[in-house]
Amino acid sequence: MSKIRIGIVGYGNIGRGVEAAIKQNADTELVAVFTRRAPESITVKTPNVKVVEIKDASKYVNDIDVMILCGGSATDLPVQGPEFAAMFNIVDSFDTHAKIPEYFEKINNAASAAKKTGIISVGWDPGLFSMIRMISGAILPVGNDYTFWGKGVSQGHSDAIRRVAGVKSAIQYTVPIDEAISSVRRGSNPELTTRQKHIRECFVVAEDGADKAKIEADIKNMPNYFADYNTIVHFITEEELKRDHSKMPHGGFVFRSGKSGFENENNHIVEFAIKLDSNPEFTGNVLVAYARAAVRMNKEASFGAKTVFDVPLSYLSAKSHAELIKELL
Amino acid sequence: MSKIRIGIVGYGNIGRGVEAAIKQNADTELVAVFTRRAPESITVKTPNVKVVEIKDASKYVNDIDVMILCGGSATDLPVQGPEFAAMFNIVDSFDTHAKIPEYFEKINNAASAAKKTGIISVGWDPGLFSMIRMISGAILPVGNDYTFWGKGVSQGHSDAIRRVAGVKSAIQYTVPIDEAISSVRRGSNPELTTRQKHIRECFVVAEDGADKAKIEADIKNMPNYFADYNTIVHFITEEELKRDHSKMPHGGFVFRSGKSGFENENNHIVEFAIKLDSNPEFTGNVLVAYARAAVRMNKEASFGAKTVFDVPLSYLSAKSHAELIKELL
Repeated sequence: MSKIRIGIVGYGNIGRGVEAAIKQNADTELVAVFTRRAPESITVKTPNVKVVEIKDASKYVNDIDVMILCGGSATDLPVQGPEFAAMFNIVDSFDTHAKIPEYFEKINNAASAAKKTGIISVGWDPGLFSMIRMISGAILPVGNDYTFWGKGVSQGHSDAIRRVAGVKSAIQYTVPIDEAISSVRRGSNPELTTRQKHIRECFVVAEDGADKAKIEADIKNMPNYFADYNTIVHFITEEELKRDHSKMPHGGFVFRSGKSGFENENNHIVEFAIKLDSNPEFTGNVLVAYARAAVRMNKEASFGAKTVFDVPLSYLSAKSHAELIKELL
Repeated sequence: MSKIRIGIVGYGNIGRGVEAAIKQNADTELVAVFTRRAPESITVKTPNVKVVEIKDASKYVNDIDVMILCGGSATDLPVQGPEFAAMFNIVDSFDTHAKIPEYFEKINNAASAAKKTGIISVGWDPGLFSMIRMISGAILPVGNDYTFWGKGVSQGHSDAIRRVAGVKSAIQYTVPIDEAISSVRRGSNPELTTRQKHIRECFVVAEDGADKAKIEADIKNMPNYFADYNTIVHFITEEELKRDHSKMPHGGFVFRSGKSGFENENNHIVEFAIKLDSNPEFTGNVLVAYARAAVRMNKEASFGAKTVFDVPLSYLSAKSHAELIKELL
């Protein structure tokens, strides 16, 4: 069997995570990394992999079965997604929830016209968490969903702190509140405010001579990002930031608390939880499983945009259907 | 939109669970219950539902979109499954793991020839647990699976106790061992023996004058069922059995403990847990969601036997694709 030939577009944290994931999957191989940077400035870990300027990607249409787009959702993917979906099967982790319907349409148009398959918004949220919300909601139509994120770094909130006057550097952890989780887990179907679900914990390096009290107040009162939460601000040194906060752990919980019975008299709790040492590597692993699915769906003439809701689960696996039934059903 | 017309074959615990689930799903309706018992001996809860002898089922091929087979896996389904799959779209909860490949083939032959769709082995294990094992294994190919069941009643083990001389009635709970679960959850990838994963707790009503010490020894030493476990035997009265042990709670946990990174240096834990007040009702809810999928796959000419690995998740939901993307992705 020939291997699935993968290209990575964008060699940041997610791109490196995808590279590591490809190494774990014997039926996949990394062909090339595409970058906007000078190719000679990038050293990839996998032997015999080309580093190519992104503008030359079209030359690789016959060499790559699926492109994994590892750019950001704010500015990279809205442009790259439709462009690449017109040339390649693609998988991406587009995660701006509110804009997914619009993005889906754009990818669907580009991919359908080119007879390509594009699986969008793959990762853990959107992605695995969406799948659990969907499955458990279909099974328990009478019930409530709860999603908690963390403990983990929110890139958006960290960026927001860095824009505060007097802040040199910062990182923000989203921390789910144990009591809220316990309450959901024991089936009490609580109504939880934003403040009751998560704490925002900030580690801030202030510039020399900055007014720390003002920085703290500016962060805590920031609308949308912090004002609706209990926020904790710690001031630390640049060395501490580097030493204690350079890993990228994350995690979270999805619950469905639902009822069954003729009079809805019985309670059921479905819980899905992940605890990740490395958010970008785990996301990379999810992307590679869906890259396998994209290639297979394309071979079966299932063109256009897809989401995790559209992919039969067996397509994620390198195992045969008979093996899956025998070993895992 | 016309409703999905469902028939129930076998009106035991699961059949009644399916009936209650249909009531929760506005796009489904129960048309008839098929039984081997005298139809007049059965009163269903839903108004205007026929109770029909099972041998007359073939008269309903134009009135029912999907049959949910609620018989047992030991003797009912091996006969009923292929028979009904030759006439109807079906969904069942066949759960004899070792015989699933053989059963799949039989359903596949019958359903394919009749251009029907049969989704087999639906429920929570096999079913939801299988899906989580498959997804998480595809995402984290370097890692270990762990499945724990309970606390809940094992029908097979309860039956085995009832066959012991001197036992009038009995029920057996499978109880996962907290320390084993904690060890898996913290990522220590333990090698667990059968004895280290579950306790077997038995509540036994002895016949008058029976030798309780001998009953206890007979249970604890029973090969396959109890000998490999730490087993606790409680003797109780018939009244206590009825009062304290007539509900059918169950639950369980599936874990994938896996690694990522170029040198497999980062750890990830994926956990799926369910806690059910009523095992048969929850199973009924899962079956109805897959009944919806069976009808849709059949309309799309996807014939033959299917498993939870083959069904796109969106097919389980009454919501439109656009709603799913907007609300749940």
